[in-house]
Amino acid sequence: MNKFFEPEKVALIGATRTPGFGYGIPGFWKRHGWLEKAYLVNPKGGEIEGKAVLRSISELPDGIDLAVLMVPAKAVKGAIKELGEKGVKALVIESAGFAETGAEGKREQEEISKIACQFGMRLLGPNCVGVVNTELKFATIEIMDQALEKGEVGIIAQSGVFGNILLDHLPALGIRVSKVATLGNKIDLDEADFLEYFAQDPKIKVILLYEEGIQDGRRLIAALKYATEKKPVLVLKSGRTEFGKRATLSHTGSLSGEDLIYDGAFRQAGAIRASNLQELLYLAKAFTSQPSLKGKRIGVLTTSGSMGAMLSDALFEMGFELAEWSVGTLEKIKQVAPGWVNLKNPLDVGPSGIFGKALDALFSDPNPDGFVLIPVIPFAAIEPWRAIGFKMRDFFGEISKLRERVPDKPVITVLLGYEQLEKEMEELCGNAITVVHSPEMAVRVLAGLSAQKRLAD
Amino acid sequence: MNKFFEPEKVALIGATRTPGFGYGIPGFWKRHGWLEKAYLVNPKGGEIEGKAVLRSISELPDGIDLAVLMVPAKAVKGAIKELGEKGVKALVIESAGFAETGAEGKREQEEISKIACQFGMRLLGPNCVGVVNTELKFATIEIMDQALEKGEVGIIAQSGVFGNILLDHLPALGIRVSKVATLGNKIDLDEADFLEYFAQDPKIKVILLYEEGIQDGRRLIAALKYATEKKPVLVLKSGRTEFGKRATLSHTGSLSGEDLIYDGAFRQAGAIRASNLQELLYLAKAFTSQPSLKGKRIGVLTTSGSMGAMLSDALFEMGFELAEWSVGTLEKIKQVAPGWVNLKNPLDVGPSGIFGKALDALFSDPNPDGFVLIPVIPFAAIEPWRAIGFKMRDFFGEISKLRERVPDKPVITVLLGYEQLEKEMEELCGNAITVVHSPEMAVRVLAGLSAQKRLAD
Repeated sequence: MNKFFEPEKVALIGATRTPGFGYGIPGFWKRHGWLEKAYLVNPKGGEIEGKAVLRSISELPDGIDLAVLMVPAKAVKGAIKELGEKGVKALVIESAGFAETGAEGKREQEEISKIACQFGMRLLGPNCVGVVNTELKFATIEIMDQALEKGEVGIIAQSGVFGNILLDHLPALGIRVSKVATLGNKIDLDEADFLEYFAQDPKIKVILLYEEGIQDGRRLIAALKYATEKKPVLVLKSGRTEFGKRATLSHTGSLSGEDLIYDGAFRQAGAIRASNLQELLYLAKAFTSQPSLKGKRIGVLTTSGSMGAMLSDALFEMGFELAEWSVGTLEKIKQVAPGWVNLKNPLDVGPSGIFGKALDALFSDPNPDGFVLIPVIPFAAIEPWRAIGFKMRDFFGEISKLRERVPDKPVITVLLGYEQLEKEMEELCGNAITVVHSPEMAVRVLAGLSAQKRLAD
Repeated sequence: MNKFFEPEKVALIGATRTPGFGYGIPGFWKRHGWLEKAYLVNPKGGEIEGKAVLRSISELPDGIDLAVLMVPAKAVKGAIKELGEKGVKALVIESAGFAETGAEGKREQEEISKIACQFGMRLLGPNCVGVVNTELKFATIEIMDQALEKGEVGIIAQSGVFGNILLDHLPALGIRVSKVATLGNKIDLDEADFLEYFAQDPKIKVILLYEEGIQDGRRLIAALKYATEKKPVLVLKSGRTEFGKRATLSHTGSLSGEDLIYDGAFRQAGAIRASNLQELLYLAKAFTSQPSLKGKRIGVLTTSGSMGAMLSDALFEMGFELAEWSVGTLEKIKQVAPGWVNLKNPLDVGPSGIFGKALDALFSDPNPDGFVLIPVIPFAAIEPWRAIGFKMRDFFGEISKLRERVPDKPVITVLLGYEQLEKEMEELCGNAITVVHSPEMAVRVLAGLSAQKRLAD
């Protein structure tokens, strides 16, 4: 497996000068220092990014760790044979046009599988975009430089385009990845292999698994059990319904099983299932920075009564409790709050300006198991203050410093409003608070962190 | 009611030079040409924004159309009497500290109500931020200049802070409002009054109602029935659950009723209920630009099989059908698509580059009642092409022009990925396509547009 993520020599079979799928890989490799360790192959020869292009696989030197295939589907079989003869043991097949297109493609795929087996090769794909390792700034597909920043999330995604889109989207959410594997039709290596590998990787703190169809359920569940004993595994599975099943069948050539069965199996294996992509991503963010949630009692501090009410509804619906503030806490709040502030949970301090002082008091309260903060504020109401030099911390306190007082409790912040203010508030919250953008998502993240607690028990 | 939205002369009672709630209003009014029509009152006198401050209400001239009260709760009663004696008939009370704080506040509030009634005044509030009319760039609270752009959405929100936060958030979503009313404790004017007023306003195309607790259910339902006959009304109600009810009680001093009853009543009255804030906002966006959805058959064009599968799951769960492509459509696609493209619905064209041609074919198909497009593309895969001069339209076609071919069918686009690409794609889609950021939201928007069809029947 190391040959996929940490190759010494890598070959790109089907390197092209024509804009199209894979066109940007040589330039991407050059930018990140990989072109010098790479060999490009294309029957037309010539030069790409200043690097000589070999005309055939036979011209490759010995000792290629990883070959990336971008050739048309019908040329894959021949290429694999040649690579096998060269002694290449690890292969990423990005070419599409196999089982996902019907019976003929399926046959072709099976033949490829046999040939690879004869040579003792391990295959990733076909119909995928291979791997990413941010540590070494290595990827078998061009990705954005921002997505190459080192992080602690491991992603296993069945689909190539989707894996890539995900990588584009993560930087904006503040999520950084360690390694990615996209599986495609998974004729050899599958999610179970990568689950085991990522489970052992000390650089990965949380594993995200996007599933479409599962070929070997028993093996997957065993791998999940193994992985979830070491770190949280978040699962998003589509093909939940009849329509979704049909769609995944034509997409990666795999049949989805019955959803309820998977749901139970995932849970038994200790995995946490997200119900949609947004939830998966926010959970990933939370799991890299938050402790588990040890109980059901949530403390809420808000500047908007309405948002507090929406959050209360969501907490109730997901089976949480609103913590009771202790007497000491209420005394502290009374000392700083104007008369119109209600001493309840959610504690709605409105535009009173006592958010920071209230937070100080609430964080000292032993009752809540976790917190949700809703420090929303109208832009125009705060703007005149900012104009005369007030900072966000003057209104809301040093939220990130206060957060250190409750290291064992999750703290989620809900932000809504003007983008620039949201950004400033996110900075004030720091990395140890997970920022979401709806009350419902805050509660879903808490539910995930609560499930993780069960795993830890 | 016109006095609230189109006053000729307006008074701000409690104008202040100390940063705090309401501090920015004079400057905001000055910027938008309202300070010259305004009178500022504060016992300290002096000058604010170059405008002389009157020391008492008695110094006000006759003919004040609207007075905005920002004085402390205990000073409100006296101020109302004085304003009543001055003949002021319309009043926004932004001060908080009434029924939402308990029994005493409730009594105080009832007395205010009586006094206002004696003078024949109409009150909005207390515990609100009044009104906005973007047409005249008038607002009784400072809001962002971007939120003052003219639009077609009318908003009725119970809460002040929330109404304001909403206004901050809308520009980023591309939603422009016409008028806003925030209700607060609604001791006089309530949601029914504004529903009727907004229903008659030709500048408002869709009404958003955020509800916490309903005081007069019959009157509200009657107003909803009246309004929904003229235009769509979208409702978000919190206080759905036991916790939410408690939260709304302390927030605006109103008791929420049983949620299921409301749900049925809203539906009977023809309103469309959103299940959360995000959904409310995307529905608002869709209702200002999309036709209603006349059937259940949806056509899907995607570049990501995974996103197509997620969308399929969501369509199934919400009771939609995947349209069957007609023979003619399939023929057209076959002519332009590479062999690996599956001729299914969702039609997944992957990175083939035939999105525009496929869209052209699908839009000619009579079978679908509505469309979802998922033109997601990895940034780094497209970047090399863009570097040599390719534009988004070269890959995806003139989406906004093609859209004109199906004027009677809703078209929703799901975008995900790198922010800059999302923005460019949004522009390519134009104003007549509603852009959302998750497959689930696309389906929720379709469900809303489908409900609107029922209203029109």
